[in-house]
Amino acid sequence: MAKDKPSIPKGTRDFGPEEVAKRKYILNTIEKVFIKYGFMPIETPTMENLITLTGKYGDEGDKLLFKVLNSGDAFKDFTLEDIELILSQAKENEKNILKKEIQEKAKSQQPQIRNELVHQQSSKTLENIIIETKSSPERIADDVTKLMRKASEKGLRYDLTVPFARYVVMNRNEITFPFKRYQMQPVWRADRPQKGRYREFWQCDADVVGSDSLLHELDLINIYNEVFKCLGIAVEIKINNRKILAGIAEVVKGIEHLNTIAVAIDKLDKIGKDGVSKELTSLNFTEIEIATLFDIITIQGTEAEMLATLNIKLQNSTEGLIGIDELSFIFKQINAVSNQQINLKTDFSLARGLSYYTGCIFEVVATGGSLRSSIGGGGRYDNLTGNFGLDGVSGVGISFGLDRIYDVIDELKLFPETLSQGSSKVLICANDSIENIELASVLKILSKLRNEGIASEIYSEKINVKKPLEKPIKYASSKKIAFALIYTENESLKLKNLTSGFQEELTIEEIIERLKD
Amino acid sequence: MAKDKPSIPKGTRDFGPEEVAKRKYILNTIEKVFIKYGFMPIETPTMENLITLTGKYGDEGDKLLFKVLNSGDAFKDFTLEDIELILSQAKENEKNILKKEIQEKAKSQQPQIRNELVHQQSSKTLENIIIETKSSPERIADDVTKLMRKASEKGLRYDLTVPFARYVVMNRNEITFPFKRYQMQPVWRADRPQKGRYREFWQCDADVVGSDSLLHELDLINIYNEVFKCLGIAVEIKINNRKILAGIAEVVKGIEHLNTIAVAIDKLDKIGKDGVSKELTSLNFTEIEIATLFDIITIQGTEAEMLATLNIKLQNSTEGLIGIDELSFIFKQINAVSNQQINLKTDFSLARGLSYYTGCIFEVVATGGSLRSSIGGGGRYDNLTGNFGLDGVSGVGISFGLDRIYDVIDELKLFPETLSQGSSKVLICANDSIENIELASVLKILSKLRNEGIASEIYSEKINVKKPLEKPIKYASSKKIAFALIYTENESLKLKNLTSGFQEELTIEEIIERLKD
Repeated sequence: MAKDKPSIPKGTRDFGPEEVAKRKYILNTIEKVFIKYGFMPIETPTMENLITLTGKYGDEGDKLLFKVLNSGDAFKDFTLEDIELILSQAKENEKNILKKEIQEKAKSQQPQIRNELVHQQSSKTLENIIIETKSSPERIADDVTKLMRKASEKGLRYDLTVPFARYVVMNRNEITFPFKRYQMQPVWRADRPQKGRYREFWQCDADVVGSDSLLHELDLINIYNEVFKCLGIAVEIKINNRKILAGIAEVVKGIEHLNTIAVAIDKLDKIGKDGVSKELTSLNFTEIEIATLFDIITIQGTEAEMLATLNIKLQNSTEGLIGIDELSFIFKQINAVSNQQINLKTDFSLARGLSYYTGCIFEVVATGGSLRSSIGGGGRYDNLTGNFGLDGVSGVGISFGLDRIYDVIDELKLFPETLSQGSSKVLICANDSIENIELASVLKILSKLRNEGIASEIYSEKINVKKPLEKPIKYASSKKIAFALIYTENESLKLKNLTSGFQEELTIEEIIERLKD
Repeated sequence: MAKDKPSIPKGTRDFGPEEVAKRKYILNTIEKVFIKYGFMPIETPTMENLITLTGKYGDEGDKLLFKVLNSGDAFKDFTLEDIELILSQAKENEKNILKKEIQEKAKSQQPQIRNELVHQQSSKTLENIIIETKSSPERIADDVTKLMRKASEKGLRYDLTVPFARYVVMNRNEITFPFKRYQMQPVWRADRPQKGRYREFWQCDADVVGSDSLLHELDLINIYNEVFKCLGIAVEIKINNRKILAGIAEVVKGIEHLNTIAVAIDKLDKIGKDGVSKELTSLNFTEIEIATLFDIITIQGTEAEMLATLNIKLQNSTEGLIGIDELSFIFKQINAVSNQQINLKTDFSLARGLSYYTGCIFEVVATGGSLRSSIGGGGRYDNLTGNFGLDGVSGVGISFGLDRIYDVIDELKLFPETLSQGSSKVLICANDSIENIELASVLKILSKLRNEGIASEIYSEKINVKKPLEKPIKYASSKKIAFALIYTENESLKLKNLTSGFQEELTIEEIIERLKD
C-alpha cells in the first residue's frame, strides 16, 4: 500500500477536541433559541438528486455543485456509444482551441509564422476535425449532459433552503401549516477556497412556510438579536424590503428594471457608488435616473424619518408603499416583543442577490472584528416550493453561517474559557506499574467514580517508577484533566489538584463529593 | 423550471422532528458515556482524498465508494487524448461482451445459429475491434484510472476508522498518546439498499491509539454495556481474539491459513456449518482438518471451562496461548470495573471480516427484536496508521451503528415517551383576529415567557371568530404543544391544559410559574 503523506481536500478541515467543543457551543446556542421560538428540527440527506438541485442556484451555482458518481466504478457501465458522445464533445473543445490558435497566429503577419501555420494545418487540420465532428455543438452539449446523468445522478447539498422546499412538497399531506422548522447541517460548494470561505461549511436555518404574517419577521429578527447577544457578538441587523426596491425601480426607470437595480446595488459595498453608476450607465440608465436612485437609497435619519421621506418619494408606487407599511409595522412592534436593545437598521441599498425574495430581507454583519462579509441573512420568498409543484406557499427564513461566526468569535476571543472539551475530570495514577498493583481495587475506584457520573480514566501506560507521576501528569495536562487521583501500595488515595498542585489524602466518598458537579 | 415530482436518492432518508429527537436521544446517550470514559471528540471532513480511501476496504469496498466529481463541469477540462482513453476502455468492454456472446453461441451446435453468428461477425467482427484497440487491457485500465483521477479526486467518507488513522498521522506531533477519541458522523456506501442497510448512515466510534494496555479493552466492553443498559436494549457482547484464531489455524492446518479460516467461519451465521465445510473442502481442507476446526470453535461451557478446554487444544501454539491469556485477563477484571450485570460471551467462531484486527475482537447483537445482524463491533488493530507512514502504533476501537440501534429501539418501543421534539410549550391564542387586538400587549407576554426560557409562540394565522380556538388548537395538537394561553379583549389571560382541557384565569407571573421546568 502506498505510504503517501496524508492530506485532506482543499477547503475542508479536521476539527480537534477544542474546535469541536467551540463549534458545539455555537450550535447549541443557536438551537436553544430556535426551540424557544417554536421551531422544530428536520434533517435532509447529504446527497440530493441532481434534478432537485440543478437550475435552482443560477448558472454559477450549477458549476459549483459537487456531483457524486453513482458508484466506485460508475464508468464501467458506459457503452461504446456513450463514450463516443464524450469523444465528440472533446473534439469540439479541441476544435475551438485550434481555431483560436490559428486566429491568434494569423494576426501575426510574418511569413515565417504563416508557414509554420500551414505546416501545422497539414498534420491536424481544422477542416478534418470539423468533418469528424458530425453533431452541432448544441446537440453535443445535450448528449454529454445525458451521459453525465447516467454516471452521476446525485449531488451534495448546496444549501438548506432548496432541500427544505423539496421536503415540504414531499410531506405536504403530513405537515400542519404554518410549518416552522430549523435545520443545522453542512453544505458543500466547489468554490475557490479563501479566508472565511470553505468548501464544506455549516448553515443553521430557521424558516416558516405557509404563513404571510409579519409576526414571523418579528420573531426572526429577535432570533438574530438573541443569538448574537448570547454569543457576545455586537452586530448590525440590516433590513430592507423587496417591495420597496420594486417601488424604487418603478420611480427610477420602471418596475421591469427591479432585478437589474438589485444586482447593481448589491455590489455597492464592493465597487462603491462610482462602480455601480458605471454599471448602470452601461445598461442604458441615464444620469438623471442614476441620480434619482442614489438620492433614494442613501436617505438618512432615524428609522421614522427615513420611512417618512421614502413615503413621499414612492407616493406613486402602490407596491413601494406596501413595503413601507411592512417596515413600519416591524419597527413599531419590534420593541414590544424584545426588551433587549436591538441594532436594527433600515438600509434601502440592501438588495440580497437571490431573485426569489419578495418581501422583507435581512443581513447581519459583525460590527467588531475584521470580517466585513455577512454572518447571516435571509428574507421572505413567495413561491420557493413552486419549483416542486406546490404553488402559493409563502415563507420567510434566516440563516446563520456557523463557520464565519466561529471565526468572528475566535478573533474577538469571545469563547467562554470554561468550555468542556469532553475530557476526563480525573486521572487515576498508581505510584507503581500496573503489573505490580492490585488492579481490581483500582478498577473498583474507577467504577465508583463513573457511576457517579464523574468522567474519569486510568493512566494505562508504563511509568518511570522513580518518577511515577511524571508521565501521567504530562498526559493529564495535555488533555486539560483537572485532578489526579493517586493510588498507593497501601491502598490510600490522594487527590491532587493539577492547577494548584495541592494534594490531600481522602476517602473515595470524599473524593466523589469534591469532584461531583 | 421543471416541476418534477420531488424525491430523494435511494437508500437515503429525510428525518422529521420526531425522528431527529429520537436520533439525538441515542447520540446523546452514547456521547455521554464516551465522555465519562475519557474520550474526546474529533470531526473529519465529509470528503477525503481518494488516495486516502482507496485500497483500504478491499476491492469490494472500492466499488462501494461514492466518488465526487471535482466540480459541476468536471468533464469540460478533458482533452481529446483523455477521452480516447475512455473510448478504448469502452471498446475493451464491448470486445469482452462480444467474445462471451460468441463463446456462448459457439457452444450451441445447431447449424442455423452458427450461420447467424457468421452474419454477426461480418458486420462487427471481433478481429476489427481488437485491431482498433491498440493498448493492452492492463494499460487501458491504468489509463482510465489516471483519467478518472483527473475528474474525481475525492470520495465520501466510507467509515470513521481510516479518516481517524489519517488524522492521527497528520497530527502526530500535536497529539499526546494514548489518544482516546470519539467521533459520531455519517458515512456513505453505494451498497444495494435493503432493510437495515442504508446508503447514508451514522457511525459512533471510540478508539484508543498508542497503547497496547488491555485496560482499554475493558473500558470499551463497559462502554458497550453501559450504553445499551441506558437505552434499555438487552444485548449479547461476543468476544474473541484474533491470536486465538491464529492458534486455531496453527493447530488445524497452519498459521498461513488464518485469513482463509477467518473468512470462512465469519459466514457461519449465514450459511451454517455445512456451508462453511463445503467452502473449506473446496479450498483443500481435509475432513479431519475441518472436524478439528469445528471441534474447537464449538467448545461450550462457562467462560472458565471454555478457556481451560481451549488451553489444552492450543497448548502448542504460543500465539494462541497469548490470546487465551488476554481473554482470561478480561474475564477476570471485567467484574471489578463493572458493577452492572454484563452479558459478555466468548465465541471462538467470531472472526470479524476485516483483516486488520490483531487482538481482541467484539461484536454486539440485540437479543430481542427481529434484527439479527450486529449493532456494534470492533477490535484491536496493530498497524492501521502504517498505511499513512506511521508504524508501530497499536489501537483498539468500537463502533455503534446508530441507524440499526434506532430500528431496534423503535421495533421494541423503547423510546422514552417524554422525548422533546423541540416544540413550543405554550401557544398564545387571541380570541379575536390579530388585527383587532392590542398586538403590543400580546407580544409583551410572549417576550416575558421567552425571557424565562419557556418555548412559546403566537398563533399567526386568521381565525374563525365564531370558533376562535378551533384552528389554533388543531395546530397545537399537531405540534404536541401542551398548553394554550388565551388572551381576551379585556386583557385577561387563561391557561388551558390541552391534554386535560382544564383551564383557569391566571396572571402572567402565575403562568410563568406553572410552565417553568
